[in-house]
Amino acid sequence: MKENGTGKFAAVGKDIARTDARLKATGSAMYADDMKLPGMLHGALLRSPFAHAAVKTIDTAKAAALPGVKCVITGRDLPKVNYGNWRLFPETQDEYALAHDRVRFIGDEVAAVAAVDRDTALEAVRLIKVDYEELPAVFTVDESLKKGAPVLHEAFPSNISIDRKISYGDVEKGFQESDYVREDTFTVHAVSHAYLEPCSCLAQADIDGRITLWTSTQTPYIVQCLLASALGMRENDVRVVKPYVGGGFGGKMELRSWEVCAAFMAKKTGRPVKFTLTREEELATGRRRHPMKITSRVGFKKDGTLVAKDLSILLDGGAYNAMGPTATFLCGNFGAMLYRYPSYRFLGQHVYTNKPPASAMRGFGAPQSLFAAESQMNMAAQELGIDPIELRIKNAQRSGDEIPGVATISSCGFIESLEAVAKMSGWKKKRKLLKDGRGIGVGCYSFISGGVFNWFNTQYPFSAAEVRAFSDGTVHLLTMASDIGQGSDTVLKQILSEELGLRMEDIRITSADTAMTPQADLGSWGSRVTLMAGNAVLNAARQIKDQLFGAVSARFNLNVIYDMECRDSKVYPKGRPNKSVSFGEAVAMVQKAKRGEPLVARGYYTPRNKGLVTPAFSFGAQVAEVDVDRETGLVQVKKMWTAHDCGTVINPVSVEGQLEGSIHMGLGYALCEQFVMEKGKTLNTTFLDYKIPSALDMPPGESLCIETYEPEGPFGAKEAGEGLVSPTAPAIAEAVCHATGYRCKDLPITPEKVLKGTASKAKRS
Amino acid sequence: MKENGTGKFAAVGKDIARTDARLKATGSAMYADDMKLPGMLHGALLRSPFAHAAVKTIDTAKAAALPGVKCVITGRDLPKVNYGNWRLFPETQDEYALAHDRVRFIGDEVAAVAAVDRDTALEAVRLIKVDYEELPAVFTVDESLKKGAPVLHEAFPSNISIDRKISYGDVEKGFQESDYVREDTFTVHAVSHAYLEPCSCLAQADIDGRITLWTSTQTPYIVQCLLASALGMRENDVRVVKPYVGGGFGGKMELRSWEVCAAFMAKKTGRPVKFTLTREEELATGRRRHPMKITSRVGFKKDGTLVAKDLSILLDGGAYNAMGPTATFLCGNFGAMLYRYPSYRFLGQHVYTNKPPASAMRGFGAPQSLFAAESQMNMAAQELGIDPIELRIKNAQRSGDEIPGVATISSCGFIESLEAVAKMSGWKKKRKLLKDGRGIGVGCYSFISGGVFNWFNTQYPFSAAEVRAFSDGTVHLLTMASDIGQGSDTVLKQILSEELGLRMEDIRITSADTAMTPQADLGSWGSRVTLMAGNAVLNAARQIKDQLFGAVSARFNLNVIYDMECRDSKVYPKGRPNKSVSFGEAVAMVQKAKRGEPLVARGYYTPRNKGLVTPAFSFGAQVAEVDVDRETGLVQVKKMWTAHDCGTVINPVSVEGQLEGSIHMGLGYALCEQFVMEKGKTLNTTFLDYKIPSALDMPPGESLCIETYEPEGPFGAKEAGEGLVSPTAPAIAEAVCHATGYRCKDLPITPEKVLKGTASKAKRS
Repeated sequence: MKENGTGKFAAVGKDIARTDARLKATGSAMYADDMKLPGMLHGALLRSPFAHAAVKTIDTAKAAALPGVKCVITGRDLPKVNYGNWRLFPETQDEYALAHDRVRFIGDEVAAVAAVDRDTALEAVRLIKVDYEELPAVFTVDESLKKGAPVLHEAFPSNISIDRKISYGDVEKGFQESDYVREDTFTVHAVSHAYLEPCSCLAQADIDGRITLWTSTQTPYIVQCLLASALGMRENDVRVVKPYVGGGFGGKMELRSWEVCAAFMAKKTGRPVKFTLTREEELATGRRRHPMKITSRVGFKKDGTLVAKDLSILLDGGAYNAMGPTATFLCGNFGAMLYRYPSYRFLGQHVYTNKPPASAMRGFGAPQSLFAAESQMNMAAQELGIDPIELRIKNAQRSGDEIPGVATISSCGFIESLEAVAKMSGWKKKRKLLKDGRGIGVGCYSFISGGVFNWFNTQYPFSAAEVRAFSDGTVHLLTMASDIGQGSDTVLKQILSEELGLRMEDIRITSADTAMTPQADLGSWGSRVTLMAGNAVLNAARQIKDQLFGAVSARFNLNVIYDMECRDSKVYPKGRPNKSVSFGEAVAMVQKAKRGEPLVARGYYTPRNKGLVTPAFSFGAQVAEVDVDRETGLVQVKKMWTAHDCGTVINPVSVEGQLEGSIHMGLGYALCEQFVMEKGKTLNTTFLDYKIPSALDMPPGESLCIETYEPEGPFGAKEAGEGLVSPTAPAIAEAVCHATGYRCKDLPITPEKVLKGTASKAKRS
Repeated sequence: MKENGTGKFAAVGKDIARTDARLKATGSAMYADDMKLPGMLHGALLRSPFAHAAVKTIDTAKAAALPGVKCVITGRDLPKVNYGNWRLFPETQDEYALAHDRVRFIGDEVAAVAAVDRDTALEAVRLIKVDYEELPAVFTVDESLKKGAPVLHEAFPSNISIDRKISYGDVEKGFQESDYVREDTFTVHAVSHAYLEPCSCLAQADIDGRITLWTSTQTPYIVQCLLASALGMRENDVRVVKPYVGGGFGGKMELRSWEVCAAFMAKKTGRPVKFTLTREEELATGRRRHPMKITSRVGFKKDGTLVAKDLSILLDGGAYNAMGPTATFLCGNFGAMLYRYPSYRFLGQHVYTNKPPASAMRGFGAPQSLFAAESQMNMAAQELGIDPIELRIKNAQRSGDEIPGVATISSCGFIESLEAVAKMSGWKKKRKLLKDGRGIGVGCYSFISGGVFNWFNTQYPFSAAEVRAFSDGTVHLLTMASDIGQGSDTVLKQILSEELGLRMEDIRITSADTAMTPQADLGSWGSRVTLMAGNAVLNAARQIKDQLFGAVSARFNLNVIYDMECRDSKVYPKGRPNKSVSFGEAVAMVQKAKRGEPLVARGYYTPRNKGLVTPAFSFGAQVAEVDVDRETGLVQVKKMWTAHDCGTVINPVSVEGQLEGSIHMGLGYALCEQFVMEKGKTLNTTFLDYKIPSALDMPPGESLCIETYEPEGPFGAKEAGEGLVSPTAPAIAEAVCHATGYRCKDLPITPEKVLKGTASKAKRS
C-alpha cells in the first residue's frame, strides 16, 4: 500500500483500530434485538403465500383471542398512507406497511401480531384467516411486458414504473462512423445482501404519543420522516435511534413494514414492541440486488477508439419500487463511466414483477451495468485484436473529463490503476503463457461518493455535524451519520482528530439519533458518508479553530498575517510552537471571552455545482486468475490483484477490509450466489442452500491504493470499498473465457453453464 | 388563588398537568434502580460500626474469594483525591469515597463489593475484616468545641471547619440606642430528607474507559466534575445521566461514595455496577438538616422599631463539610431577612462532630435560622405589647430595600402576605377569643431564587438551554436542568410554550444528561431552576424568535418598526394576525434562507450585579391554629393559612403541591421528626420509628399567592415552595405558646416537652 504522506498527516492515513472493535469482539455491542424494555411485546408478521392475489377478508378473531396476544392489526387498522423513499416524486411511493386489498409477492405483509412472547405471536399469526382470490402473476420482465400481462399497480398499466434516460452526442452518427460495432445482451441475477444481523426494531411510545424507534437501519432520518407520515404524526414526534448495526449493504435504507407495525402497536398497547426477522424471512422475502436484462451496442474505430454506445436496461424490480428509481438512473450512469464515449444513449426501465422487491445493494446498479460493459469491452478487445488493458487505457477517463450534462470528474486515477494491476499480476506474460484451464481476466469500475440528486427531498443540508470543545482537552462530535459496520464513526473521528490536532481518545462520538444528533443526514448509502459527513465535520471543526486561533492571537498579541494550526493537542502559529497553548487552555480562553459560554459549532455539507450524480468519482481495476476444472465446470479463483483510486486513504486497514469484503461479495455474485425460485417462491431460504463463498473460497490477493487528491473530499478522500464489488464478476468471466473459450453473459458462472459452454469448444493448446 | 392574568399569558399561570404525571402514576417512569444492563453487578458497602476510629488493616481476602464476587475495593484502591462541593475552596474538600485511615461516624464508608447479585454482595461485605482502633468521639457542638476535644480533621484543630461573617451598621451603638433588648438561645435538630427514592446509581464503562453514570441526583454536572477528579479522569470522559428521580430536597446534590465505587468498579470489572441504598442506610447514615445552636440578641425601640441584631450560630456539621459552608452563610443571611435591621452582625461556625454529615435540606439554613428569628419576634411582640403581625408589618422589608453589601430586594410582597394571612385566619379575633388549649400563631419567611456565589467554581454560565425549532411546528428543548420531582421539566416547557406561542405538546424536552444537553447547569437546589434555567430558555427562545421575525418581515415586506409576536402557533406583526404564517412555516423560511441549515439557538443565564446571595427574594407569612391536649401534651394543628409572594405563578397547581409538601415537612420538623441517637448511633432507622406526619395529620389549609412581578425572573417568576418550609415551626411554636403559655425554644415540640413546659403554667382563662 502506498505511503499515505505520514509526514503530512497525523491521524489521516493511519491504521487506527475501529472505535467499536473491542466492543464487538467481546460481544458487548448492543444490537436492536439485544434490547429489552419492561413490558416489552414481541411481534410477528403474517405474509402472503401467493405471488399475486386479492385480499377479500381477514378474520383476526381467533388470533386476538389467544391468551398472551395484545394486539392484532391488518392494513385496515393503519392510516392509508403510501410510502417510499423517492419522496420527491410521490407517484413512486407504492408501498403500504400491510396489504390493503392486494398482495403482490410471496411474503408481502398482510397482518401483524404483538404478544407477550415470540412463540405466542407466531401461533397467533397462524390463527389469522385470510380469504384470498389468487390472480395471474408474472415473474420475469419479459412476462411482465407482454401484451395483456397482469397489471401489478393500476397507476402503471404497462408494468413499467419508472424510466430514466441519459443522452449526449449523436449516437446514430457515431455508429455510422464506427469501424466495428457489436451488440450484446447480458442478464444478471438477484443476490441477497446477507447482512449478518437480520432486520430488527423496537418501538416505544411515550406518554405524549411520541415514538422512539431503535432500528437496524442505514437511514435513521428517512425512517423518521416516512414513519411519521405513515402514522400521520409530525416528523419530530418520531425519534429514530440506530443501535449497533450488523451490516446493511443497501438492504436497510427504507422504512419497512415491521417498523410501522412496531410503532403503531406500541402506541396502541402502550407497551414496547419488538420485531426481529428470521434468516428464512430475510432470504425468502427480503430486498435483493436487481436482476437486469442489459442490451448494449457499442461502436469503435479500428484502432480501438470508442465512438458510440447505446445501452438499454430492463430492471426486474419485483413488486414495489423500493430504491429501484435510483438504481434505474445509476445503472445508466455507470454505463457511461470509465471510458470516453463521444456519444451515449441510455434507456432504463423499471419493471414490476410478482417477486420480492429488489432495491439498493452495494454498488447500486454498478455491478450489473459494469458486468455488461466490462464483458463487452473484453469481447471487443478480442475481436479488435487489442490487449484488453491497452484498449481500456486508450479510452480511459482522466481527471477533468466531463460527462456532458451529468458530471465532471475532478480526480481520476484510472489509468494508473490499470497500469498497476497489469504490472502486479504479470498480465502480459500470463495472457500469453497460461495453460488451458487457467486464465486471467480484467474488470474495472468507477463509483460515486454519495449522490447529488435529492430524491428524498430533504429540507436540510445533506450532512451535519456538531463539535463541542471542552477545556479539558476533549471534544464531543455529534452527527446523524450512521455507522452500520463500515466504520464511519472511526473515520469521522479520524477526520476530526486530524483537523483539530487531537488524539482519537480525546474524541467522544454520538451518532445516528434523530432527536439528539444534529439535523440531518441522508444515511449510509452510495458511499456518501466519508465525503459528505466528513466535510460537515471539517466545516464544524474549522469554526472551532477560528475561535481558538482568535483567542491565541489575542493572548500572544500576534500579527494578523500569521497562519495558525492545531497540532499535538496544542494551538500555535505555524512553525512557532513556542507560542503555543494547549487545546484545552485555548478552549478555556474562548469560553472566558464569552463569559463562560461553551464552545460549540455546527457544520454542514451539501454538494452543489457537482452535476447530477456525485461530487467525486473513484476508479479501479482488478485482475482475476482462475482455474477451471474441465471435468466438473468448477471455477476456482486463484488470485486477485486490485488497484483502486479512492483519493486520500483515511484508514488503510479499514479500506483493506472493505476490499476483502468486496472481493468476497463479488465472488459470490460471479460464481455461486443466487435465489432459486419457482413461480415466485424462493426455494433456498437458509445459508445451507443459499451459497455464499466461505473463508476457504477466498483467493489470496494483492492490492494497491492509487492515491489521488480529490478536491471535494475531506483531506482529498473519496469513496472506498463499494465500487470494488463491481469488477470481480467481469474479471472472472473474462478469465474463464481466457481459460476455456467460454464467454458467460448471464451470471452466475455456474459449473453447469461452464460445462455446457465448453462442451463444444476445442481445448486451447 | 389570585387571577394569573390569563388575558396576558397563554401558558404561564395555567394549571398544566405535569409532563411526567401519567408516566409516574402508571408506574412506567424509569428510576435508577429500575435499570438493568446485561452483565450488571450489584454493589454493597461496608460501613464503620464506630463513631471515630483509626483503620489499621483491612482484610478482603475472604470476601474476594466468595463465589460470585467480582470486585472488592477499599480506600487504598482508589486514587487519593479528596472531594467536596465547595470546589472554589479546596481546603473545604474533606471527603474520600472510602476511608483511608480513619472513620469519623457510624456508617462512614470503608469498603465496597460488586457481585453478581445483591445477596452475594452483602455476604461478601460481612466477610471483610477490619482492624479498627477506636478513638474518643464528640457528638454535640459543645463537646466538640471543648478544650482538648478529639480532633476530627487535622487541618482544623479547633473542629471549626468554616466560619462566615456578615456585618453592617453599628450593632453596639444600636443596642445602646435600643429601648428593649432580648437575647435567646434556640436549638434545632436534624431531620431526614426522607425522599421516597433511596439513593441509587448505575455505572457503565465504555471501551475507551469513559464512564456513564445514571444516578439519582439533583446535580448531574457537579457529580460529573467531582467523579472525574476523584477517579483522575477528564471531566468530559464522565457522562452523568439523571433518570427519573424520586425527590432530593437537598440530600442528593453531592458526589457520594457509591457513585465513585460504582464507576471505579465498572471500569475495573468491565461490567455495569449498580448500588441502591436501603431505607435503613438512608436513615442511619444519610445526609440530614443541620442541627444548630442559635444565639440571637435583638434590640427594639419602644414602638417596636428594630434597631440591632447580633446573631451567632453553631452548626453541628457532623463528620464532613458536605454543603455545610453554604448553610453556614445562608443561615446568617436569612437572619437578616424579612425585617429592616439598621445594624446586623452574624457569626456562623461550622463544627465537626462524629455523626453523619448534615448538608443542604429544603430551606438550606432558613428553617433553623427563621425558627429562632420568628420565635424571637413573637416573644418580643408579647413583651412589647404589640400584635405580632403588626410588629412585623412595622419592620417589614419592601421592594427596593437594600441589605448593605449583600443584596437588593427587587420585588417584595411581604406586607401584603402578612395582611392576607391576618385577614384569612381572622387573626385579631382569634388571638383574643380562642379558649385555653387552643392557640394561633404566626411565622414568616423569605427565600432565595438560586444562589449567586459560585462556590462550585463552574466555568460555564449558571444555566443553559438549547432550542431546536422544526418546520413541522414542534421544538425540542435541551437543558441540563434537573427535574427531581419538583416539576421543572413542565415549568421550563411552559415558559418556552409561552414565549414561542406553542402548545405544550409541541415541545419535546430532553434534560439532565451531561454529554447531550448543553453545558451546564449547577443543578436543582436553592430554588434556582425556574428563574435561572427559565431565563436561559427565554434567552434561547428569543434568538429563535428574532430569526422567525426576520423571515416573516421579509415575506410580507414589513416596515421595520413593527413589533412582532409568536402566538397560537403563528408568527405575525402584533395586532395583525392577517399577516401571519404558521410557526412551522416561519421555521421553514428561516431554513430556506440558510440553505437548509436547521434553526437552533442556545441561551444562557448567569446572575450578575445581584449581590452575594440571590437574584430575587420571595416572601410569605403563615398562621397556624393548634389544639393542645393538656393531659397528653399532644399538639394538633387544626388549620394553616398561608400567603406567599412567589412572583408570577407559572403553574398554580404545582405551586399548590409545593405548598402542601412544605407544610407537611414543616409539621414534621416542628412536632415529631427527629433522629434518636445514642453515642452517634441512630436508633430509629425505619419509617415505623422515624415519625413522619401521615396524610391524616395534615391540617386543612387556605392559601393565597401574592403575585408581584420579579424583574429578574422569567415572566416575573421567582422561588416557590422551598422557603415555605420555614414559617410552619415558628407559627406552631407561637400557637402552642398562645394556647398554653409554653414557649418551645428547642425543636421538636414533643408532647413530653409540652407537658413539662405547661406543668407549672396556669391555664389561660
